[in-house]
Amino acid sequence: MTKNIAVAPDTRPEMHKMMCAAVERSGASLTGIEEADGLVWADPARPELFPEIAERATKLEWIQLPYAGIEPFAHHLDPKWRWTCGKGVYAPAVAETVLALALSLSKNLHNYARETEWSGPVGSYLQGANVTILGGGGITIELLPLLAPFNCTTTVIRKKDGELPGASFTYTTEKFEEVLEETDLLVLALALTEETRGIVDKKVFNLLPSHSFIVNVARGGHIVTDDLVEALEAEKIAGAALDVTDPEPLPTGHPLWSLSSCLITPHVGNTPEMGLKLLDPFIEENCRRFINNEELLAAVDVELGY
Amino acid sequence: MTKNIAVAPDTRPEMHKMMCAAVERSGASLTGIEEADGLVWADPARPELFPEIAERATKLEWIQLPYAGIEPFAHHLDPKWRWTCGKGVYAPAVAETVLALALSLSKNLHNYARETEWSGPVGSYLQGANVTILGGGGITIELLPLLAPFNCTTTVIRKKDGELPGASFTYTTEKFEEVLEETDLLVLALALTEETRGIVDKKVFNLLPSHSFIVNVARGGHIVTDDLVEALEAEKIAGAALDVTDPEPLPTGHPLWSLSSCLITPHVGNTPEMGLKLLDPFIEENCRRFINNEELLAAVDVELGY
Repeated sequence: MTKNIAVAPDTRPEMHKMMCAAVERSGASLTGIEEADGLVWADPARPELFPEIAERATKLEWIQLPYAGIEPFAHHLDPKWRWTCGKGVYAPAVAETVLALALSLSKNLHNYARETEWSGPVGSYLQGANVTILGGGGITIELLPLLAPFNCTTTVIRKKDGELPGASFTYTTEKFEEVLEETDLLVLALALTEETRGIVDKKVFNLLPSHSFIVNVARGGHIVTDDLVEALEAEKIAGAALDVTDPEPLPTGHPLWSLSSCLITPHVGNTPEMGLKLLDPFIEENCRRFINNEELLAAVDVELGY
Repeated sequence: MTKNIAVAPDTRPEMHKMMCAAVERSGASLTGIEEADGLVWADPARPELFPEIAERATKLEWIQLPYAGIEPFAHHLDPKWRWTCGKGVYAPAVAETVLALALSLSKNLHNYARETEWSGPVGSYLQGANVTILGGGGITIELLPLLAPFNCTTTVIRKKDGELPGASFTYTTEKFEEVLEETDLLVLALALTEETRGIVDKKVFNLLPSHSFIVNVARGGHIVTDDLVEALEAEKIAGAALDVTDPEPLPTGHPLWSLSSCLITPHVGNTPEMGLKLLDPFIEENCRRFINNEELLAAVDVELGY
């Protein structure tokens, strides 16, 4: 017997249509929320619509969110339902963005892009660099093969113990400060929790070498923004590429906009155009697993909040 | 018996010193040009000093140039000597630059770098793209492994026949126009000769898809600059990243400086800082080969001019 799955809200027509098609391809019955066993959430920008939709459900078991990081939905999480999200789904896109940002910093492209005349040579190799990656999730798993031809020494710092395939070293969080002195490139690709909020602060910038670069594709809240501004102004590090900021969006006139060693991209680790293409087969697969009582992908731990 | 090798001119002290040390490490006798069997040219910017130095030589056999592309020396080439250059030496650095430029274009980093406020999402994947590479030399050989994790379809167009390891397809030059229609990224990494001058012109821009990008790390003269300006203005292609230009340096006020889809870097495929490090072991190795009558690396074909 199949299951009923609803897709809501319908405020984002393109995403709604794609998700309905994915549900139908999975073999589930596409129904309204009232009869639904599962709900696929179809508008990342409208979490506030959740309570009134959930209220109409009579036998809901499972909710699939479209996010990689679920903070916008965090206060709706309720352990009476099973929750899954999109973590890992966008990882191949975000990993490309990490490499693009890292290479842009090391080749000084962010500054060359701003020039209107021929200037002098600035640039360094990524080849052979010491890369420290905070987080051992999907983005890191996708990033390591992209870095492999560069013969970098890759050090992954993660919460859980256990080797990550393709990493030169895998350590738990206690080792973080110890490896900073030898870090040429620091990549933030971890989940935002109360423990990791502000993990990159003044102390970290003081330990990093002055030639080092930092790339953040995780969440703006991992970096203490004022400390970063100070570190860049004092040239404690050589540059920062931020796809996420705190506050986000970064207000016009914020000091980071005018620091030449800073490159800001507006949370485009994956663009909607790229993301939908990745989400489509993932939604289908998770619906199929739901119908067949198989283990769901990207389960959210309601306690941990990711 | 060893050989005598001179290093000249001494107008660039850091390079001169490095090259003298490399000669001595090779086991050769470091001598003046008068007694020299070999000459290591030690200032890329001063080819005009060559005639007066060469005139003083009495038994010169071999000249090692520091260039990857030898155009500045082309009119001094004389088949009475054996010539070698630095082709291939800088290739690992330049290949990194190619990937940096390609990713910068596809992730729109050149435009984000110019923003002073939060903007909308623009960006595409390099993953799975059709990449056409003009030239099958050192840069291409170093670039193919960097592209490998992106699962691109790579088409190498070269003068010589024969498969290039790691390329999806290798064709000779006649096929060039045929592959353009399916090209997402066109990379120029070939030598500049009379045949290849202006190889990328209006006709090429008309054949390329409007979403395609072009990266030039070869020589400015490969592209007909006016045709490129027109193509970018008319959005016939989506962007160009140029590490070399024609004219070079690109004059202040040139239309390319103000085209948002254009990213210009000032011939920094390898920076002097990076280049010396790569040249050092290479000079030593070629001197060692010269002493032992082994085949020299990076031989220049005086007829072909590269």
